[in-house]
Amino acid sequence: MPETGHIRVDEEFPLALGGSLPEVGITFEQWGDVDAPGDRTIVIMPALSASAHVSSGVADPTPGWWEAMVGPGRWIDTDQWRVVAGAILGAPFGSSSPLSENVHGGGQWGRDFPQITPADQARCHALMLDHLGIERVHAAIGASLGGMQVLQFAAMYPERVSRIVSISATGKTTPGTVALRRVGRNAIMNDPDFADGRYAGGKGPLRGLAVARELGTICYRSRDEFNQRFSWDPDPEGPFTPHKLTYEVERYLAHQGERFANMFDANCYLLLSRCMDLMDLGAGFDLYADGVLRIRCPSMIIGVDRDMLIPASEQQHLAHLLQSHGREVHFEILPSLFGHDAFLKEHEWFGPRVRDWLQA
Amino acid sequence: MPETGHIRVDEEFPLALGGSLPEVGITFEQWGDVDAPGDRTIVIMPALSASAHVSSGVADPTPGWWEAMVGPGRWIDTDQWRVVAGAILGAPFGSSSPLSENVHGGGQWGRDFPQITPADQARCHALMLDHLGIERVHAAIGASLGGMQVLQFAAMYPERVSRIVSISATGKTTPGTVALRRVGRNAIMNDPDFADGRYAGGKGPLRGLAVARELGTICYRSRDEFNQRFSWDPDPEGPFTPHKLTYEVERYLAHQGERFANMFDANCYLLLSRCMDLMDLGAGFDLYADGVLRIRCPSMIIGVDRDMLIPASEQQHLAHLLQSHGREVHFEILPSLFGHDAFLKEHEWFGPRVRDWLQA
Repeated sequence: MPETGHIRVDEEFPLALGGSLPEVGITFEQWGDVDAPGDRTIVIMPALSASAHVSSGVADPTPGWWEAMVGPGRWIDTDQWRVVAGAILGAPFGSSSPLSENVHGGGQWGRDFPQITPADQARCHALMLDHLGIERVHAAIGASLGGMQVLQFAAMYPERVSRIVSISATGKTTPGTVALRRVGRNAIMNDPDFADGRYAGGKGPLRGLAVARELGTICYRSRDEFNQRFSWDPDPEGPFTPHKLTYEVERYLAHQGERFANMFDANCYLLLSRCMDLMDLGAGFDLYADGVLRIRCPSMIIGVDRDMLIPASEQQHLAHLLQSHGREVHFEILPSLFGHDAFLKEHEWFGPRVRDWLQA
Repeated sequence: MPETGHIRVDEEFPLALGGSLPEVGITFEQWGDVDAPGDRTIVIMPALSASAHVSSGVADPTPGWWEAMVGPGRWIDTDQWRVVAGAILGAPFGSSSPLSENVHGGGQWGRDFPQITPADQARCHALMLDHLGIERVHAAIGASLGGMQVLQFAAMYPERVSRIVSISATGKTTPGTVALRRVGRNAIMNDPDFADGRYAGGKGPLRGLAVARELGTICYRSRDEFNQRFSWDPDPEGPFTPHKLTYEVERYLAHQGERFANMFDANCYLLLSRCMDLMDLGAGFDLYADGVLRIRCPSMIIGVDRDMLIPASEQQHLAHLLQSHGREVHFEILPSLFGHDAFLKEHEWFGPRVRDWLQA
């Protein structure tokens, strides 16, 4: 088995909301013994802005987005486990997305890429496992949008996973989160360079995307972190106008926004933003509980006390529902200044818990 | 004394950050016995989107923004008190602002209106009282930006006020709040119709202003309110794309944003947004405490538990600092679904407390 690759499946891929993709492509990476069987395999599902490059490897020695967690001798020990990650459906990291060629003709999909949900992304991970010859994995792990895919995967394929770790995710998006995401989308769609989603390749609504990411950055961290990290006083030199970056936190946000706008695609962003709104384990069921209780394997559900995008109460509700119906749940709330982004920062907290959970 | 009027002061008005306005205009309203002396007078300082029309009156019978609080027989009883309110400096409600004529020539001030702070606005209220012949008022009351002006007024003119009520305000803006405001400003300044602030009168960056207000609306309310008030499910009819208003909360925000954009001016908004960033009772002092402790009168300081723009901890810090130095402080945190906007909604909670505080 190669350490990295691209799977192309020339079969119709039906979508949760109806319709289908005529084909699907999945870019993946692997670490550890890439011929190990499923019961020694862990699948990691990335969040919105993360590729399949979870960790460094032979093919790509640059650090991955969960470098501190995954690797030889690390918390998710690739000397012990085979780790697989597929780039998520809809993101600009190699798997099918608005940047892909529409085989119906007309060049890239762009804004015509059909709306997906985390359930579709979970099905894409299942397809990847099929093609890697893995029927059942030991664990599925993800945070944020990755954690939503993990929940959907465990719900849709209870026979294909032994245990899960879902961090800072929700079983069903609430209006408070839709509201925050809408503002970002609105900023993008208002940018005249968005051109109703028909902007030229490589161009697009960079300023709108930057505004969306600035708001995202605020939601991904916490007020306490910002208040601790940044100066409370304006730049001494002035002028103190609204048109100038007067506070340190403004320079930070401007930098984050610009960097993201240059690496992400606006149609992908809008698609994934709405995809997260549409997260709902209860979709298609009479009761939310009916959808949730498809999850039968032991679950590690983690929330972060200062998560302002997907509050810890949402992970708690999910854990309580599972526990109330006899499922094995390990639920914890991490107190962290880093809020929603804690999974990218608090490795010393997550590490031992995830390691022990994998071996439980 | 007239019930409403416009004061024009043809004298240089120096500004806290340096520079000055060549003249200043103040639009005001009054209720109750408009010839009552200062010790029977209460001055109300409005927030960003509020005019001097606090309550209905003979001259303008339409309901004011604090109609339920102020009037004959109401909590702030105009049968007992003379109530005065001036439109705030910088806002598009009649007092000097970017919409005013620049007497230096060149038409409206627009983006060239000098940057003000809540201290300048407080000085403007003092000027209004001078012209109304009121040396010392019984109380100054305000919420949000109004509450900041109240704090500055009590700090700058300790001899001119007997007691204050400051609701959902801060003594010094923190980076967590600057961050949220910056995103709104950025959305406005990115709008091509902003034209670097030199848009034609009556036009301007309506879409950017709407985005800013949508984010503002989220910050003014609470996640719990949104989750309780709006459907958690998308519109059944679909399509569920990012380009359509798919959730009820999106329609609500779109409506709020559009309404505000049509009533507010972008240069005024940017000016006032930065003005609030610059709120700092410690400005010009070695220590923040030195600035705060200029406030000598008894203070009612109120925070709201779900305020996501100016968290209750900021009102608490201020109250503790004042109390620690022997000032009389009545501090309470209101538990309210309405967050920062609670002062506009929770009249049954604020009413008796403010009434009793005025009579204490």
